[in-house]
Amino acid sequence: MSLLNNISYPQDLQNLQKNQLPQVCNELRNFIIEAVASNPGHLGSSLGVVELTVALHYVFNTPDDKIIWDVGHQAYPHKILTGRKETFHSNRKYKGISGFPKMSESEFDAFGTGHSSTSISATLGMAVASALQSETNRQHIAVIGDGSLTGGMSFEALNHAGVEKSNILVIVNDNGIAIDKNVGGLSKYFTQITSSKTYNRARNRIWNLLGGNSGGHQKSRSYLRRFFAAIKALIFRQGNVFEDLGFRYFGPIDGHDVENLVKTLNDLKAINGPKVLHIATQKGKGLAQAKDDPTQYHFFGAELPKPTEPPKFQDVFGKTLVELAEKNPKIVGISPAMLTGCSMTFLQEKFPERTFDVGIAEQHAVTFSAGLAAQGLIPFCNIYSSFMQRALDQVIHDVALQNLPVIFCLDRAGLVGEDGATHHGFFDLALFRNIPNVIISAPLNEIDLRNLMFTAQNTKQPFVIRYPRGKGTIADWKKPMQEIEIGKGICLKQGEKIAVISIGTIGRNALKAAEKVNVSVYDMRFLSPLDETLLHEIFKTHERIITLEDGVIEGGLGSAVMEFAVRNKYHVPIECLGIPKRFVEQGTIEELQKECGFDADSIVEKLKI
Amino acid sequence: MSLLNNISYPQDLQNLQKNQLPQVCNELRNFIIEAVASNPGHLGSSLGVVELTVALHYVFNTPDDKIIWDVGHQAYPHKILTGRKETFHSNRKYKGISGFPKMSESEFDAFGTGHSSTSISATLGMAVASALQSETNRQHIAVIGDGSLTGGMSFEALNHAGVEKSNILVIVNDNGIAIDKNVGGLSKYFTQITSSKTYNRARNRIWNLLGGNSGGHQKSRSYLRRFFAAIKALIFRQGNVFEDLGFRYFGPIDGHDVENLVKTLNDLKAINGPKVLHIATQKGKGLAQAKDDPTQYHFFGAELPKPTEPPKFQDVFGKTLVELAEKNPKIVGISPAMLTGCSMTFLQEKFPERTFDVGIAEQHAVTFSAGLAAQGLIPFCNIYSSFMQRALDQVIHDVALQNLPVIFCLDRAGLVGEDGATHHGFFDLALFRNIPNVIISAPLNEIDLRNLMFTAQNTKQPFVIRYPRGKGTIADWKKPMQEIEIGKGICLKQGEKIAVISIGTIGRNALKAAEKVNVSVYDMRFLSPLDETLLHEIFKTHERIITLEDGVIEGGLGSAVMEFAVRNKYHVPIECLGIPKRFVEQGTIEELQKECGFDADSIVEKLKI
Repeated sequence: MSLLNNISYPQDLQNLQKNQLPQVCNELRNFIIEAVASNPGHLGSSLGVVELTVALHYVFNTPDDKIIWDVGHQAYPHKILTGRKETFHSNRKYKGISGFPKMSESEFDAFGTGHSSTSISATLGMAVASALQSETNRQHIAVIGDGSLTGGMSFEALNHAGVEKSNILVIVNDNGIAIDKNVGGLSKYFTQITSSKTYNRARNRIWNLLGGNSGGHQKSRSYLRRFFAAIKALIFRQGNVFEDLGFRYFGPIDGHDVENLVKTLNDLKAINGPKVLHIATQKGKGLAQAKDDPTQYHFFGAELPKPTEPPKFQDVFGKTLVELAEKNPKIVGISPAMLTGCSMTFLQEKFPERTFDVGIAEQHAVTFSAGLAAQGLIPFCNIYSSFMQRALDQVIHDVALQNLPVIFCLDRAGLVGEDGATHHGFFDLALFRNIPNVIISAPLNEIDLRNLMFTAQNTKQPFVIRYPRGKGTIADWKKPMQEIEIGKGICLKQGEKIAVISIGTIGRNALKAAEKVNVSVYDMRFLSPLDETLLHEIFKTHERIITLEDGVIEGGLGSAVMEFAVRNKYHVPIECLGIPKRFVEQGTIEELQKECGFDADSIVEKLKI
Repeated sequence: MSLLNNISYPQDLQNLQKNQLPQVCNELRNFIIEAVASNPGHLGSSLGVVELTVALHYVFNTPDDKIIWDVGHQAYPHKILTGRKETFHSNRKYKGISGFPKMSESEFDAFGTGHSSTSISATLGMAVASALQSETNRQHIAVIGDGSLTGGMSFEALNHAGVEKSNILVIVNDNGIAIDKNVGGLSKYFTQITSSKTYNRARNRIWNLLGGNSGGHQKSRSYLRRFFAAIKALIFRQGNVFEDLGFRYFGPIDGHDVENLVKTLNDLKAINGPKVLHIATQKGKGLAQAKDDPTQYHFFGAELPKPTEPPKFQDVFGKTLVELAEKNPKIVGISPAMLTGCSMTFLQEKFPERTFDVGIAEQHAVTFSAGLAAQGLIPFCNIYSSFMQRALDQVIHDVALQNLPVIFCLDRAGLVGEDGATHHGFFDLALFRNIPNVIISAPLNEIDLRNLMFTAQNTKQPFVIRYPRGKGTIADWKKPMQEIEIGKGICLKQGEKIAVISIGTIGRNALKAAEKVNVSVYDMRFLSPLDETLLHEIFKTHERIITLEDGVIEGGLGSAVMEFAVRNKYHVPIECLGIPKRFVEQGTIEELQKECGFDADSIVEKLKI
């Protein structure tokens, strides 16, 4: 008899006996595997926390008690147990439920999370607020993976939480792996902490020397017991980074033993102040494939690419980087834990010593790259556009101000599709445009991407190349590379009366539209420096201008073109297509482009007005 | 006989005997105190590292060896010993030397630093670059204070450095105080680490029990010796956050004993791999006043305010916050280590439990505030404008996307004067403008600042108030507060033909100019939402428009007004005054406004064309 069938909310779960929970976990795990098999999603993280999720909702009084899921793609079991089992088939779909916790979607989603390492800060804020408002019974729980702990913000929050003495529980979900294999010192540390063998060995030796358990120096042994206790206290007080920072530390315990989790969480409920519970889990638990290749199955359900099709831009980036690095020994690659996602794995295979996975640490990635550049290397620093928001100060202060030639490859720029509001990369053009010294470019297609990378390696200033998630259009992309003139746009199609001015791959939509209406299409290629010569030409020969970008209009290409027109006193009407000033939820890229009004059909309509 | 007189470069220093170095330190310290007494600067940090600086340049082969000074205001002794003794009187002055290390100023300034916590990342990048380029003898040294270590980026870098095995030395300058008293768990940890009393006590007890140094259980004692060594190894391997992360840890040692520093640094030179040297120093060493009140004397030389003059905006903020907090128990204050600088100390005195100094941790400050707001509190989160660049992702992802009512008070917005390029806060308007849901405002004067704060507390969405460093114009500012209509601008002066449209305190320059030329002056007050009704009025009644802002033109108010004009097909000429697209160095605010072309005189000239 299925138990999950009768569970819609945590209350239903709480009506069960503790010994029924393992069955619930099994059913929940299978439910997720089946759902995700037919509808892609982040599987591994969610399968790893099935038992934890069941235990949390069994023990705590949600939604009054607050659970914050770091990164949030681990929240599928949570969503299913909190009223969204019936709608889970719409996970990550247009108008469906979000793939991440979302405050506006459910009162059980205490705080929205999509980017890494925010959970402890948010949880601490809530805990402090509860304390100030005399809600002393409320529990505040952050669930964070060991990978997310490498984000500096987690450390800032732990450092603060240790002195606030609020009622917070940080559950460190230690599966020894972030999205890519976690490489930092912290990862090593987690391995060490699970067993203090040195201590145990020394303890046994001295204990046996003094007679072991069979008599001997009674007085010595009594003192020694106290001594061992003191030493142990020392190790677990000073020997643990969490205790150093003022937390009480518990664990590690098995994160897949749901009954023991329930017992432990119940115990912890009674202890005030900041606490860490360290649990060990397997990412992708229950799915043999996922366990065998956790990096591959972090994201499950995506179809395999067919060899005759155009490749992903990611692979064009990755393979081109290897080609360039083979010829230029100064080239190095840097990624904050996204080696697989951005296909820097190709470089890693070929030149492991020139490839740097710095962990989930965008700020460090940028300034580390600045250091590399300051000493004459040519760093290709690949960061997803929306994560780059986290390192803007480092771009300004460490790279641009010193005019250091770091090449920023902004992957997943523009609308990203199913990951939704937290992951769209549409602020980048506007954020970078006003930073002095920075070249900003976006390729129309795979060949342009290659040529921009080729060009960037010889440019002695910061160079941004932004390109989208997904496939291009050219199957035969591996052409000899050539230099591109910096700050020069091109005419893609000469038409009449109306000019569409675009930047990046979104120009494909303009070209499609131009098949139905005879308009000119221009690809600026560079947002900065802006090709003013070309703009003068366009403004002088057209009666109407439409700008097109896969980014926010305010501050981006649309703004730049309007400013150009005003400064040069052109009175040609200008309309701007792009992301309006509001957040955009999830859906396919096509659905979202349509919603924002810049899919090919919408452009045609706009042109026909 | 003065030794310093004959020292211009490190080579001169290296010609001295080691026992002459204490005298050099004394002379150097007095040189700095005298120089800063007549020319304000950051004194405390620099006085704390006099001996360290002398020792570093005595032992290492700069500029080939690289020294990176975190935050950089500790670099005065470094500047004086590296060719800038004669120009040090121009420190922080217009066209003078920078108050921070600057690559373009000297080859001895290996990396520019102004914002906190960047040094380890940059140093690691350089060390990795040297290793890849077979420069195996080069040494790479980061000098970082314990306060800067609370910045998450430092932790990201330490975590990465621990696995890179590059040749880097991180010198932790532990003076137990950041700019404000350092409050995090890390601070406590540094205190603990200096002496493992528990261990020592236990060791002595068991040692004496077994006969002490006078015979007794010989075999037991021999084993015990080994046991103690194992325990000590355990403590200093697992018991130290640096060793946890893969560093070799040395210290703590006295940071004011220059001869011992020389000896230690020479020893460390011979040890490969990542190393930490922990030194204990006194901020403001040598200056009795500075030592007595280190927070006050972090920045030395600023004149005391006279009571009849208009106050600093900082004090208006601080005192108004107390007034509001007295009436509204939901109000709390958050600052990342700038409590004194932003005058949140007033709130701390009155409501310590509602005041949160979270350490140098802007990212955490923002998301912590989001957590507070999510639970119904009203957080006033005060962050210097240029430091806010570090938390932009948190504003987008944690605050704006969830539409949480956090009130961001951006202190030190616009040109800041003597701190120069790294500290000007002129990107904020452009960076925030395209973020949905965020209200962006700037007060013209003290009374507007109060009214905006009053208004913000009841607004249920993110609210930015940006205001400059320094004094306002109204001595009698403590008026009853009143609500301001959100998104409404005002006419400050009705003139003819030309309209100057400004935002914030820079409007004072427009008003001054309008005394000489009869033009209209408008204060938009809000960049978002923009008062389009008022703009229509202005465009319909004027022949020429000039926008004025203390921020970058591209993306800011100038852009917004130009976009409005294009969208609404106004053909009135528009010119934009503000920060051009380049970095601006140090000087007085007046000098820099003139350089950028928007001091009152430059505006008059522009109006007369």
